[in-house]
Amino acid sequence: MLNGAPIVKLVKETKMTSLRPVAHASEDVGAAMRAIGAEARRAARVLANAPRAQKDRALVAAAGSLRGKAADILAANARDVAAAKARGVASAFLDRLMLDEKRIEAMARGLEEIAALPDPVGCVLARFERPNGLVIERVATPLGVVGVIYESRPNVTADAGALCLKSGNAAVLRGGSDSFHSSAAIRACLVDGLKAARLPEAAISAAPSAAREAVAEMLAGLGGALDVIVPRGGRSLVERVQSEARVPVFAHLEGIVHVYVDRAADLGKARAVLINSKMRRTGVCGAAEKLLVDKACASTHLAPLVKALLDNGCAVRGDAAAMDADPRVTKASEEDWRTEYLDAIIAAKVVDGLDAAIEHIETYGSHHTDCILTEDHQAAERFLKEVDSAIVLHNASTQFADGGEFGFGGEIGIATGRMHARGPVGLEQLCTFKYRVHGDGQTRP
Amino acid sequence: MLNGAPIVKLVKETKMTSLRPVAHASEDVGAAMRAIGAEARRAARVLANAPRAQKDRALVAAAGSLRGKAADILAANARDVAAAKARGVASAFLDRLMLDEKRIEAMARGLEEIAALPDPVGCVLARFERPNGLVIERVATPLGVVGVIYESRPNVTADAGALCLKSGNAAVLRGGSDSFHSSAAIRACLVDGLKAARLPEAAISAAPSAAREAVAEMLAGLGGALDVIVPRGGRSLVERVQSEARVPVFAHLEGIVHVYVDRAADLGKARAVLINSKMRRTGVCGAAEKLLVDKACASTHLAPLVKALLDNGCAVRGDAAAMDADPRVTKASEEDWRTEYLDAIIAAKVVDGLDAAIEHIETYGSHHTDCILTEDHQAAERFLKEVDSAIVLHNASTQFADGGEFGFGGEIGIATGRMHARGPVGLEQLCTFKYRVHGDGQTRP
Repeated sequence: MLNGAPIVKLVKETKMTSLRPVAHASEDVGAAMRAIGAEARRAARVLANAPRAQKDRALVAAAGSLRGKAADILAANARDVAAAKARGVASAFLDRLMLDEKRIEAMARGLEEIAALPDPVGCVLARFERPNGLVIERVATPLGVVGVIYESRPNVTADAGALCLKSGNAAVLRGGSDSFHSSAAIRACLVDGLKAARLPEAAISAAPSAAREAVAEMLAGLGGALDVIVPRGGRSLVERVQSEARVPVFAHLEGIVHVYVDRAADLGKARAVLINSKMRRTGVCGAAEKLLVDKACASTHLAPLVKALLDNGCAVRGDAAAMDADPRVTKASEEDWRTEYLDAIIAAKVVDGLDAAIEHIETYGSHHTDCILTEDHQAAERFLKEVDSAIVLHNASTQFADGGEFGFGGEIGIATGRMHARGPVGLEQLCTFKYRVHGDGQTRP
Repeated sequence: MLNGAPIVKLVKETKMTSLRPVAHASEDVGAAMRAIGAEARRAARVLANAPRAQKDRALVAAAGSLRGKAADILAANARDVAAAKARGVASAFLDRLMLDEKRIEAMARGLEEIAALPDPVGCVLARFERPNGLVIERVATPLGVVGVIYESRPNVTADAGALCLKSGNAAVLRGGSDSFHSSAAIRACLVDGLKAARLPEAAISAAPSAAREAVAEMLAGLGGALDVIVPRGGRSLVERVQSEARVPVFAHLEGIVHVYVDRAADLGKARAVLINSKMRRTGVCGAAEKLLVDKACASTHLAPLVKALLDNGCAVRGDAAAMDADPRVTKASEEDWRTEYLDAIIAAKVVDGLDAAIEHIETYGSHHTDCILTEDHQAAERFLKEVDSAIVLHNASTQFADGGEFGFGGEIGIATGRMHARGPVGLEQLCTFKYRVHGDGQTRP
């Protein structure tokens, strides 16, 4: 959705004169973005050494500013909403874009909650004394400059900006062009907070316009200034960032989330966890998408589970066994096992025990979140060990796949990559570390 | 050094007939490498779940095989050495390439030492209980498949292969073409170990030929199979890997290592640490390259430190103050502050206190290793906090920048990137983690 149309449009508008204006526009945005990157890098050095109290003061002051400037934010949002309506966007899109007093208050409270979290910077992660008397500490330090590319949710401006600030990172934000005015108004409040705490404004900066070139410039790393990019949005955005970014990315492309009901599963528990995993919210990445039932308990467990899903308004696509279990089940295709519905649909099948379940998940899964339901401790241990996903659960809803539910006090995203961050990316994962070595004149023989 | 010549040569040899043989050769190596990647990925799943005893058995058996097949290894090495001599390589190069009984014994002992280290896989890195009774553990798991691209040191085959194996990772090794036969003979011993422990041979695989295309294929990620690449070698290799790799890289390009002598430094201690930092071995990445002396103690400390360096055989290039301190000091150029000599040369200057020292290091440094010499605890704390390097030391030689010295029992390299691994990359940093969530039927409200 970030590709194509607008760039083509720009070229069309200018092709009858000369291509130079296009190049110029691009160069201007590029230069502006690289300048923002350089400023962010400088700000990151200040932030990295800022004491906790100063960062928290900025967050609390920003919360105050959000409340004080609510009218400005709503006016800016009204402009974005009017433009979106004029373009005839879908109602789900409008809902994500729209702000009201309640959502502004929720943002303000979010900032205060982040202020109340412990400072991750400076935490001693490990400490060891060597035989020669050297004391070596591994200490958490900020990553540096975090780029956040998001779509139409303007509240990401506050959430992501605050998480970066608290973790001592500078943030470069690039919100969707649809929420440009809303995001700018929210960022102005964050800047109020930074000023109140005498922190550099560049600690939380934003692309200067809604120009699409800003995204390309960020994917290229802002001239070496960006340490990591976090995309927040739909599949097409994440896919583009993952394939084009020249800097590390914290992201997940999709959550093909499995619930495996083992032969030793308690049926009542399994039903409750399954329905919650699938139906609590169907549009979140931790929502269950596949049900695997152990052949050994299919005769007792499959029909009631499928019925519960159907009775709760979930369409079920299944293998022959699932279709036998209930006439409302339709036939699942091979594609169904690879599809993230993000809707009230699930694919269900019988598998030949734990090994087959693990094999299915490793073949079709997305290494996001997977769950086993069983009263057999050994089976659970094997599943938790052998399923190679960021989050593996035993007897608990997959909808717990969330930084808040993990106690991280917020998350900037969920990562399924294997480098640095995996699972919910909270304050701790927005940090790297360094080694501090304390000596008394030691030399190496 | 991996670029250019050989590829050009290949084209020249075939251009009079047709270009197809070149394309074919390339496709063959590419297909072979991608097949190796796919096998390595399968092997990685087995390794990830292999118990410690099985991995250790493979390492110990491989050590035995290295000793038992020493004659084969030496014969293979003789072929490589003869070819290198025929090409008239430098003696330092020959020294790195050459194996003898002692070096083979050191490799075997290295494997046994790695076997004796604790297993990093499965370590519970954090554990928290949530108010709803969920118990969440962050548990170390292997990264997956590690690609290692190295130059003429054949012993990297054993070291890197063993570290990957112990950490549950499959390794794809691509040694320099100069050490092809030596590396193959060493890998054969590792495979003996894998077989003895009934682990898949593909757990430690190697490029099938010395063809340069194997490197390009690894940089492209072996069709998605590689999780990370570790380059081991000179600057040109690391530079190429960093700029071309489409997968994460653990590396350092250079170590512009500073020793800052603060106003409160003990002169005797400073002299001993400085000389050791610079002269113990001048060719390692942790060797000091720059001396910064606080203006406030320059009158007492600069001349004796410069003299000690010179008397120990180190050339000194300096600013006006350093040149005044000793007539043997030559003038440093701007370029000197940015140069890693890896030789008995140091650049020395006077700076206006701690702030100026930190500023100089942040401007010219490479974020590898930097040291402060001082008896002032507060100054040391500020330096350790504000210098943004992987390793920061107080009153200790910079030559401690080494995984072995840190107690890691070996390192696959030293990283100056900010993602995942920083400083010496040992077994722990060859792991990622996952979250294991233990419930009793919890659902999310």
